[in-house]
Amino acid sequence: MKDFNELEKMLDEKRFRLLHDELAEENSADIAALLETVPIEKAVLLFRMLPKDLAAKAFADLFSEVQQSLVERLSDKEIFNVIEELFLDDAVDFIEEMPASIAKKVLAYATPETREQINHLLKYPESSAGSIMTVEYVNLKRRMTVAQAFDRIRETGLDKETVYICYVTDSERRLKGVVSVKTLLLSQPEQVINDIMETNLIITRTDADQEEIARLFEKYDLLSIPVIDSEDRLVGIITVDDIVDVVQEEATEDFQIMAAMTPSDKPYLKTGVARLATNRIVWLFVLMVAAMVTGGILEKFEKAIRAMPILTVFIPMLMDTGGNSGSQSSTLIIRGMALSEITPRDFFKVVWKEMRVGLMVGVILSSINFLRVWLTYTSNPEYGAEVMKIAGTVSATLLFTVVVANLVGGVLPIIAKKCKIDPAVMAAPLITTIVDALSLIVYFSLAAILLGI
Amino acid sequence: MKDFNELEKMLDEKRFRLLHDELAEENSADIAALLETVPIEKAVLLFRMLPKDLAAKAFADLFSEVQQSLVERLSDKEIFNVIEELFLDDAVDFIEEMPASIAKKVLAYATPETREQINHLLKYPESSAGSIMTVEYVNLKRRMTVAQAFDRIRETGLDKETVYICYVTDSERRLKGVVSVKTLLLSQPEQVINDIMETNLIITRTDADQEEIARLFEKYDLLSIPVIDSEDRLVGIITVDDIVDVVQEEATEDFQIMAAMTPSDKPYLKTGVARLATNRIVWLFVLMVAAMVTGGILEKFEKAIRAMPILTVFIPMLMDTGGNSGSQSSTLIIRGMALSEITPRDFFKVVWKEMRVGLMVGVILSSINFLRVWLTYTSNPEYGAEVMKIAGTVSATLLFTVVVANLVGGVLPIIAKKCKIDPAVMAAPLITTIVDALSLIVYFSLAAILLGI
Repeated sequence: MKDFNELEKMLDEKRFRLLHDELAEENSADIAALLETVPIEKAVLLFRMLPKDLAAKAFADLFSEVQQSLVERLSDKEIFNVIEELFLDDAVDFIEEMPASIAKKVLAYATPETREQINHLLKYPESSAGSIMTVEYVNLKRRMTVAQAFDRIRETGLDKETVYICYVTDSERRLKGVVSVKTLLLSQPEQVINDIMETNLIITRTDADQEEIARLFEKYDLLSIPVIDSEDRLVGIITVDDIVDVVQEEATEDFQIMAAMTPSDKPYLKTGVARLATNRIVWLFVLMVAAMVTGGILEKFEKAIRAMPILTVFIPMLMDTGGNSGSQSSTLIIRGMALSEITPRDFFKVVWKEMRVGLMVGVILSSINFLRVWLTYTSNPEYGAEVMKIAGTVSATLLFTVVVANLVGGVLPIIAKKCKIDPAVMAAPLITTIVDALSLIVYFSLAAILLGI
Repeated sequence: MKDFNELEKMLDEKRFRLLHDELAEENSADIAALLETVPIEKAVLLFRMLPKDLAAKAFADLFSEVQQSLVERLSDKEIFNVIEELFLDDAVDFIEEMPASIAKKVLAYATPETREQINHLLKYPESSAGSIMTVEYVNLKRRMTVAQAFDRIRETGLDKETVYICYVTDSERRLKGVVSVKTLLLSQPEQVINDIMETNLIITRTDADQEEIARLFEKYDLLSIPVIDSEDRLVGIITVDDIVDVVQEEATEDFQIMAAMTPSDKPYLKTGVARLATNRIVWLFVLMVAAMVTGGILEKFEKAIRAMPILTVFIPMLMDTGGNSGSQSSTLIIRGMALSEITPRDFFKVVWKEMRVGLMVGVILSSINFLRVWLTYTSNPEYGAEVMKIAGTVSATLLFTVVVANLVGGVLPIIAKKCKIDPAVMAAPLITTIVDALSLIVYFSLAAILLGI
C-alpha cells in the first residue's frame, strides 16, 4: 500500500481524482488502518471517496470508537449506504458496540428488511453461533441442475459472504445437504444437485458456543458451517474468517483470566487507565485478602520464627517454587481442556500423572536443595548440629509443596469445569494462594517436630 | 457418525461390505478418531477398507505414533498409495515426525517427483512459511480466457488444496496476480484473466514466520496466501485451515512458556511422565535458585525479624500481590505484542500507562491494607504505639511493590522483544522473582527507618 503520509498529502493538496483511484486499489483492512491514523475530519473526506462496497468493508474493520465518530459525521444517505452494504454479521457487531442512541438512529435509516434481520440477530446471546453467523449464503434446491446452480450463484453470489459452499434446503427451509463449488465445477452441467450434494453434514445450532464451533472448524478443516434453529431450519452460516478471530479472542480471554483479570477484548493501548485498573483490582484484592490469611499462619508460628529466624529465609523459595509448579500444571490442564484434549472424564488420569510428575520433579529439586542448605550452613557455628535438620525440614517441605501444587493445579481446573465455572479462573494466582497456605503449615509443623521449636 | 463400537462390531462380525459403505460416508477426521480408538490390528483392517483419498486424509489427521504403527504394518504398495495421495504439506508433517529409518523407507516408495518435492519442503526451517505451505495450487496464465480457466480448474483441480483462489504466473513462474473463482463465475466466458485478476497482492516469503502469516490472514480475511522465494517466483500456497492450527499452536506455546515450561505441542495425555517432568524442571530449578537469592536478602535482616517477627506475617501478602500485579501487566503486554497490537515503539506509552495504573491500584490496595493492619493490631498491647508505623511500613511497601511490578511487567517483555528474545519468557514467574527481591529490600529498609530496628 502507498504510504499513509503520501495519501494524506494528496488529500491536503486536493488531488481528489488521483486519491480516489489510489484508494480504490487498496485493501479494506489497509484503508481502515489509514482512517484510524488520520484526524477524523480527514477520515470522513477519505471515507466519502471510497467505492460503496470498499467503504462498507473498511468500515467493518474500524475500531468501534472510530465507527462512532464517523457515523456521527455522515449524512443520512451515507449511513444508509453503509448499513445496507455491510455484511449482516458485521452490521450486528457494529450496532452492538454503539451507544443506544446511535444504534437506534442507524437502524432507523436501514430498510425494514435489513432492520428486521439485524434486530433478529441482536437477540442471540454473545459468543453464541447466532451472534456471529450471517444470513447471507447461497441457497440451492435439490431439483436444480448444476447449470442452474451456477446461474443462481451468478445472480445472487455478489453479496454473499461465501459462494464456495452452497446450502440445499427444502420448501420449509430445512437443510438437506451442502455442495461445494469445487464439486459443481467437477460435475456435468446437467447433473442434479440432489445426486451430488454432501448429506453427511457438520452443523451447529444457534445457541452453540463459539469456542465449540471453532473446535469443529479445526477438526474438519471447514470453510463455513451451517447454523440451524430448534426446528432444524437453516438460519445462517459462519465463515472461517470469523473463526480465526474467535480463536484469538478466546485465547486472549483465557490469558487474561489466568492472570487474574476481568477479561476485555479491547486492545491495551485503546483502553483507559481507569478501566485497566478496574479490570485488575478485583482479583488483586481477593487474592490479597487470601494472602493475608496465609500470612496469619505465620503469626501462629511467631515463637518458632523468633527462635530460629533462618527459617524465614526459605519462605520465598518455597512459595515461589510451589506457585510455579502449580502454575505449570494448571496451565497444561486448562489449555488442554480449552482444546478439548482433556475432559472431566480424564480426572484420575490427570491425578495419577501429576502425582508422578510432582514426585519426580520434587525429589530432584529437594535433593539439590538439601545439598545446597547443608553446604551453605554446615560451617556456620550458629546452627551446629541442627544444620541437617534444617536442611531436612526445608527439603521435605519442598517435596510436599511441589507434589501438592501439581495435584491442586491439575485437579482444580477439572473440578471447576465440572461445576460449570470457567477453568481458567483456577490458574496460577488462585492456586499459588492455596499452595502457599498448605506449604507454610507443613513447613512450620515439620520444623516443630524436627527442630523442637 | 455411527457409534465407534458399532463399527468395531461390524468388523468383528466380518460384515466388510456394509462396513466399507459406512466408512466411505464418513468424515476423515472422524475416521482418524476411530482408528486411534481401536487396537492397531483392527485399525489396519479398517484403514485398508477406506477409499484411497479418504485413507490419505484420515492418515493426515492421525497422531504421529499411530501413523508410525500403521506404516509399520502396511505393504509397500499401500505405503506408496498413502504418500502419493497425501497433500504435500501433510506428507511433510508426517515425514518430519517419523524416526529416520521409517522416513527413509517411506520416501523410498514415493515417486521420484514426490520424493524431490518432499525433500525440498523438508529443508525449510520449522514454523516458516516454507514448512507449512503446499505446492498444490491452481496455476493460470494471463492470456487465458475465463472459459479456459474453468477448463483448467476442472482438469487439475481435483488434487489441489484449494481451487477457489487461482494463481496467475508468467513463464518464469513469477506471480502476476490472483483470481478467485467468485470473480471467474461473475465474469463472461470470453473475458481475459489479465483484465480481471487482482494485482494488489498480499504475499509472503518462504522464510516468513508462521505467526506473522497468521496475522495477515486475520487482517485481510484470506482463504489462502501465495508464498514466493527470493527471486519472486511462486513456490507454494498456505491455506486457511492450516492457519487455524497455527493460531492455536502459537497460543498454546505462549501459555506454556508463560507458565515457565519448555513448550511442547504434544497433547498432555499423550506425553509421558518423564517428558512432562523434563519440560518443567529446567525453569523450576532456575527460578528456585533465584528465589534462594531473594531468601538470602532476609538473612541480612535477621536481626529485624528477631526483634519484630510480626513483619514476616506480611511477606506472603507482599510477595503474592507483587507477583499477581506483575503477571497482570506482563500478560497484557505479551499478548498485545503477540497480536501485533503493541510494538517496541510503544515503550513509553506502556511505561506511562502502567505507572498510572500501578499508582491507582496501589493506592487503593495499600489504603485498605493500612486500615486492616491498624484495626487488627491497634488493641494488641505488644505493639502499642508502633502499630501506625508497622501499618505504614507494610502499606508503603505494598504501594511500591505494585507500581514496580506493573512497570517491570510492562517493560521487560518489550525489552525482550527488542533483544529478539521471546517476550513470553518474561512472564509471571520471572517477574515475580525480580519483584520479590525489590519488595523485600524496600520492606526491611523502610522498617529499619520507621521502626528503628
